[in-house]
Amino acid sequence: MERRRRVVVVGAGFAGLELVKGLAAAPVDVVLVDANNFHTFQPLLYQVATAGLDGDDIAAPVRAVVRSQANVDVRLGQVVDIDVDDRRVVFRDGPALSYDRLVLAAGAVTNTYGVPGVDEHGFGLKSLEDALQLRQHLLRQFERASVDPSLVEQGVLDVVIAGGGPTGVELAGGIAELYRNVLSHDFPTLDVRKARVVIVEPGDRVLAPFHPKLSARAARTLARLGVELVFGQGVTGTDGKVVQLDDGSSVPCSTLVWTAGVKASPLADVLARHLGDGTLTRGGRVVVTPELTVPGHPEIAVVGDLAASPDGSGGVLPQLAPVAIQGGRLVAANLVAELAGHPAEPFHYVDKGTMATVGRRNAVAQLPGRLRFSGTPGWLAWLGLHLIMLIGFRNRANVMVNWAWNYVTYDRASRLIVGDDDHPARPSGRPMPTDPDR
Amino acid sequence: MERRRRVVVVGAGFAGLELVKGLAAAPVDVVLVDANNFHTFQPLLYQVATAGLDGDDIAAPVRAVVRSQANVDVRLGQVVDIDVDDRRVVFRDGPALSYDRLVLAAGAVTNTYGVPGVDEHGFGLKSLEDALQLRQHLLRQFERASVDPSLVEQGVLDVVIAGGGPTGVELAGGIAELYRNVLSHDFPTLDVRKARVVIVEPGDRVLAPFHPKLSARAARTLARLGVELVFGQGVTGTDGKVVQLDDGSSVPCSTLVWTAGVKASPLADVLARHLGDGTLTRGGRVVVTPELTVPGHPEIAVVGDLAASPDGSGGVLPQLAPVAIQGGRLVAANLVAELAGHPAEPFHYVDKGTMATVGRRNAVAQLPGRLRFSGTPGWLAWLGLHLIMLIGFRNRANVMVNWAWNYVTYDRASRLIVGDDDHPARPSGRPMPTDPDR
Repeated sequence: MERRRRVVVVGAGFAGLELVKGLAAAPVDVVLVDANNFHTFQPLLYQVATAGLDGDDIAAPVRAVVRSQANVDVRLGQVVDIDVDDRRVVFRDGPALSYDRLVLAAGAVTNTYGVPGVDEHGFGLKSLEDALQLRQHLLRQFERASVDPSLVEQGVLDVVIAGGGPTGVELAGGIAELYRNVLSHDFPTLDVRKARVVIVEPGDRVLAPFHPKLSARAARTLARLGVELVFGQGVTGTDGKVVQLDDGSSVPCSTLVWTAGVKASPLADVLARHLGDGTLTRGGRVVVTPELTVPGHPEIAVVGDLAASPDGSGGVLPQLAPVAIQGGRLVAANLVAELAGHPAEPFHYVDKGTMATVGRRNAVAQLPGRLRFSGTPGWLAWLGLHLIMLIGFRNRANVMVNWAWNYVTYDRASRLIVGDDDHPARPSGRPMPTDPDR
Repeated sequence: MERRRRVVVVGAGFAGLELVKGLAAAPVDVVLVDANNFHTFQPLLYQVATAGLDGDDIAAPVRAVVRSQANVDVRLGQVVDIDVDDRRVVFRDGPALSYDRLVLAAGAVTNTYGVPGVDEHGFGLKSLEDALQLRQHLLRQFERASVDPSLVEQGVLDVVIAGGGPTGVELAGGIAELYRNVLSHDFPTLDVRKARVVIVEPGDRVLAPFHPKLSARAARTLARLGVELVFGQGVTGTDGKVVQLDDGSSVPCSTLVWTAGVKASPLADVLARHLGDGTLTRGGRVVVTPELTVPGHPEIAVVGDLAASPDGSGGVLPQLAPVAIQGGRLVAANLVAELAGHPAEPFHYVDKGTMATVGRRNAVAQLPGRLRFSGTPGWLAWLGLHLIMLIGFRNRANVMVNWAWNYVTYDRASRLIVGDDDHPARPSGRPMPTDPDR
């Protein structure tokens, strides 16, 4: 009997999970690799950062997600190299893993474009750790101010958000409501209205991918929440106390959140090291064929934010969850087709619309066919879609409890500060047992 | 108009919160001090450690808990000294806080009695960080074994629990069920039945505070879950790879959980530094009058695990949640009485019973009047009591979702590994912004 093909999938995000699911009935052995043992529901990271949801609510253990699929194994590990010639994935720890087919779906990370000080002093919002860290920081700033209220005047509660895209807008709305509806009650001695939440956006409107009418609506809603909008400016640096802008002006602010750029996972560079510079686009994503494979290496597919997926008319598709999901589905179908001796199909992305929330019970949604929603109808559409998308019943139930609670009470319960300043969840009292290899 | 008295309460555990509540109508200014910004529901820490509950489920933000009480302020800070003469509480960071009345309710911490290697290599179960750390470690051991299954034979999944009291028993039952019902499915390639869970207890039975019949029942239930019981032995040391026992034998095991002792918070030593050695009992707790105040210092009360609360017949009461709650209630009533010119009342503890779970749907409960439950009735009593006790509706609702889910599916969803080995929730990708004082 012939050995079954091994398909190694790197990344348990939307693309990777969808791909694995598509191989459920295929006579292949799948190994799903991720650096974390959980899938992160990235669209709701801003809810974790603003204490609306617990970290666990938007994360699902990978092994639980794929448990019912008998042909899947899981490997927790950090991929440091891909041996393209010998067809092996190399890990930081533990033995390498050989593959017959490889799917890279490692996503994207924050890109600070080397703007001075942002790596050291800024906060990102691309991972669960990012979100928890930002939340802890915001809560700590309030605790500091409660000991010395004069710090409020000095801007200890202020937040500058670099980037007015969906992430920046959702985060700004969430922070404004957290401050106004929750923390102002938790800290009655502080004049929380003095806290500034500022979006700095180089373009001339927020939510650039949306129709200008929706951008204008979002801007009005943000203004009503007290969020300041600075257009035509980029952040040029920070020292952790002051944020500098393009025009030479500066904002005294110790909390800079960088939502102004993403780049492909470092795995793209690993691939380029072996296959040459032409492997990547100028934006750092991996160039792929219409079938989403690496040119000259049909055994390697790339999907999701890591790939420069062709849009069919010479451009590349944006780095969005639906692109990742549909890409994963296509590559799975092509792997199944290959086993049956059928040719691979090219990728045809179907745009099903985009959405962004702008605070409590308010969202903008842009659907195909020029359908646009805003306000409460937009929010209901957004809410339903995200609840359906959340993986696993239990998370869905918990998220609903939290949301119902927030909605009824304006309260947010997920505001615990765990651990030290420098080590968010490290024990403060006793030494940490020495891992690994114990 | 006379300045209102300031009552400073150190510790937001059961005793501290009950005390603050008892002062709701009193014409005093209350400052509630804690090193964390949340109350931890300690009886359920073992559920967090065994992935049955999220950390956030058993923690409630202190500010949210006391928000409706207008005469309470909250101070987040680590108390490093008490200036008994000038009546000031001194913090590691920030200005000192003067008091008219002081209530110390800082609880207890793990006591390893200096047993070699336990501080460095062992795990405790007294704080939320302890519980999250143990959970991450257990899950990581499984991920290691999944890369190299021979590690299972070498004991990588084994756990030794020092101490057969309620904490040790509840944890052992939880781990055994986590392994058997959940992780054996998550890791189908591992022979999880080979994993040992061992309780090492110097006495001759588990749950020594309970009636021997209940101890015997608990032991039988544990045995059915595959937990090994070693009696008449203490742990004498560990190097992180092997656990040594009294009789010179040793168990190869990298996971030692220490539930074999607690001691009063370091705040007891701070007090003794000022008031002399006679301030503390041999066990390190603060000696108090029948009214739970420090002898010679009626302005300082001590309640909960930190105090050697007299039992009325020459002994001291055990370090249990009901003792803390009732003590807090008494001291609050005495503070109110004092304002009205009434004398202080002595503490009369009313024993309402003790409970401990022994795995899924099984608990032992010992109520006053020789009422004893075990098995399912015990578990139902335990479940109801703990749900009622959990602070805050939202936590209660979430906990119920989690429990219902666990019960129906045998699944446990809270099994995420966040962050690095050495820094559980520290970002692995980008540098940590430098706190504090940024």
